[in-house]
Amino acid sequence: MTRTDLSNVSCSIARTLGLLDDAWSWLIVRDLSVGISRFDQLHADLGVSRKVLTQRLADLTEGGIVDRARYQDNPPRHDYTLTEKGRGLLPVLVAMVQWGDRWEPTDAGPPIRFHHRSCPRSTITTSCRTCGEAVPAEDIVTRSGPGGQAGPGTTLIGNYLTSPQ
Amino acid sequence: MTRTDLSNVSCSIARTLGLLDDAWSWLIVRDLSVGISRFDQLHADLGVSRKVLTQRLADLTEGGIVDRARYQDNPPRHDYTLTEKGRGLLPVLVAMVQWGDRWEPTDAGPPIRFHHRSCPRSTITTSCRTCGEAVPAEDIVTRSGPGGQAGPGTTLIGNYLTSPQ
Repeated sequence: MTRTDLSNVSCSIARTLGLLDDAWSWLIVRDLSVGISRFDQLHADLGVSRKVLTQRLADLTEGGIVDRARYQDNPPRHDYTLTEKGRGLLPVLVAMVQWGDRWEPTDAGPPIRFHHRSCPRSTITTSCRTCGEAVPAEDIVTRSGPGGQAGPGTTLIGNYLTSPQ
Repeated sequence: MTRTDLSNVSCSIARTLGLLDDAWSWLIVRDLSVGISRFDQLHADLGVSRKVLTQRLADLTEGGIVDRARYQDNPPRHDYTLTEKGRGLLPVLVAMVQWGDRWEPTDAGPPIRFHHRSCPRSTITTSCRTCGEAVPAEDIVTRSGPGGQAGPGTTLIGNYLTSPQ
């Protein structure tokens, strides 16, 4: 884990990563997004140590991404589910999958696919809200926004961005 | 950093995170994507230690995400740029920014904005290739693909996915 506190960096990427810093956090969100909800299932699926899993679940719960509900009192057992904030991370997972499918493929093809609920054979992509076209990575332009300011984690980057339009 | 080798997990999320495991890796990609290219600039912008920055740049170069070119021999100095594989990560950063803007906003508004090169006032979203509609997180459905198989990191998840269509 990055030991630096990223929660106050003037960058929405840093703020996101401040809550999901390592691979286990994202893989827990992946598992919860498909309905895995018990500690022992997460432990079995991921092969992560119980200590690390406990810590990541506590961090995700504290960050408002995961909801923890007790389903048994003795011994205490909990169900873990994604909050609305947590489900909102799915587009990030979609983008990671598209990149992994292209650049780090398995021999047998894509392991997982994301579809639009109302379009059974759909795939999902990154597109422009104005013209509706799919936007390949090389056509994405980065500009500064109103919240941009120089500080830890963004000391120089503002000089490299074009002004807002 | 996650010490587990994620490069052979049958999951494109895990394979992506195997190459970009912590926040610094993603923030380096962010900085390179806007044209920051020198070690000292990255160090100044991010406020990360030189040791960690050196290691992350070596890992990203080894992973084919970053290209390193010597621009001075004595003392040796290098320029760092994103490869095509590295630039392909921009849609992941776009999705992280959208999530961060919504759920961990700064008081002053979005720090950074992504636009479609040919549409000056555009914003970018996650949408369906079939119907063209923007797809909110709750309408993203996850299914298994041909490369899905049970193994470390995916021991149980296949049981939670619907079959391919």
